[in-house]
Amino acid sequence: MSFSPLIVRLMETLRCLPGVGPKSAQRMAMHLLERDREGALALAETLQAAMEGVGRCKRCRTLTETELCAICSSHTRDQRLLCVVETPADVLAIEQAGSYRGYYFVLMGHLSPIDGIGPNDIGAPELLRLLDEIEAEEVILATNPTVEGEATAHYLADQVRRRGLKVSRIAHGVPLGGELEYVDGGTLAHAFAGRREVTA
Amino acid sequence: MSFSPLIVRLMETLRCLPGVGPKSAQRMAMHLLERDREGALALAETLQAAMEGVGRCKRCRTLTETELCAICSSHTRDQRLLCVVETPADVLAIEQAGSYRGYYFVLMGHLSPIDGIGPNDIGAPELLRLLDEIEAEEVILATNPTVEGEATAHYLADQVRRRGLKVSRIAHGVPLGGELEYVDGGTLAHAFAGRREVTA
Ligand SMILES: [Zn+2]
Ligand SMILES: [Zn+2]
Repeated sequence: MSFSPLIVRLMETLRCLPGVGPKSAQRMAMHLLERDREGALALAETLQAAMEGVGRCKRCRTLTETELCAICSSHTRDQRLLCVVETPADVLAIEQAGSYRGYYFVLMGHLSPIDGIGPNDIGAPELLRLLDEIEAEEVILATNPTVEGEATAHYLADQVRRRGLKVSRIAHGVPLGGELEYVDGGTLAHAFAGRREVTA
Repeated sequence: MSFSPLIVRLMETLRCLPGVGPKSAQRMAMHLLERDREGALALAETLQAAMEGVGRCKRCRTLTETELCAICSSHTRDQRLLCVVETPADVLAIEQAGSYRGYYFVLMGHLSPIDGIGPNDIGAPELLRLLDEIEAEEVILATNPTVEGEATAHYLADQVRRRGLKVSRIAHGVPLGGELEYVDGGTLAHAFAGRREVTA
């Protein structure tokens, strides 16, 4: 004996959400059915509107429901800088840090030959075309410090350098204010490999 | 600068789900938009179907899309027993334990004078009417061992006893296989207060 078929289906579909296992799905379904049907209907409507309305910015490829995203539409950013990131969430994180004022290009992933994800899938041709169009002087590669992110940065660096543009990679290491003790081994190794001489 | 308005609205509506804070909502929205639009549309459709289709069993008040739930429709259960629980999830937990074979009545809550929840809100009149209709000989009160659950059990016990029926309360204490060390203080106090003499 279990919940009725429609409730079981609701619990199963809730599991398409990342981090939602059977127990959370049951708790969510019960909560919505018992206490927040209005919220559930609003969620249903917004899910549908977002899946149908949200596409990609035709310039930077980030997720947006307009042809150009708010950043690409802005005329007050520094045209000399283009920062390449893996995801829209990376754009938000950099924007919230507040110090970068240039434009972005969002790969929506990284190179992963094992999964059949090549340069075309991460928009490499669009990135190169964009570089030909705009006035960028420097491309900042801010892909993740993972094996795939490094390989992607390496590939793009080659391509961009051939255009005669300056290419840089953001620094990786121990976070400011972070205690060495609590930093993971990979980050520490990276911080040592990337050490700089301290000059008087 | 943040995500576009429709994406922000999606993240906000996802927060109607219990246990979903701003960070999880963002992760969920990005996951659905980047990698599982089909799952998101299925979820939208199921949410709507469930909110519109799921009502209450007209006999036991549990959540179901049929007039009578599967348990109330069954003719193989023990008619002499009626177990009163707070929620549909409690029914499932008891069914999964597998030893109880009677029927249920689901309060969909508990008495809570502070929140204005009285006997009518937990279906007390329907419970008494049901007892008059069926052949139940014993009502088992399985509300939670909380202040409100105990008060609810106490109130219902009075009402049911007046009908001349046997009333029982499920036992509460240290879980089987549980180690005393890891049991919370409230449960331990309950276990001591409910101690039974061991006879030779
Ligand atoms: Zn853009
Ligand atoms: Zn029922």
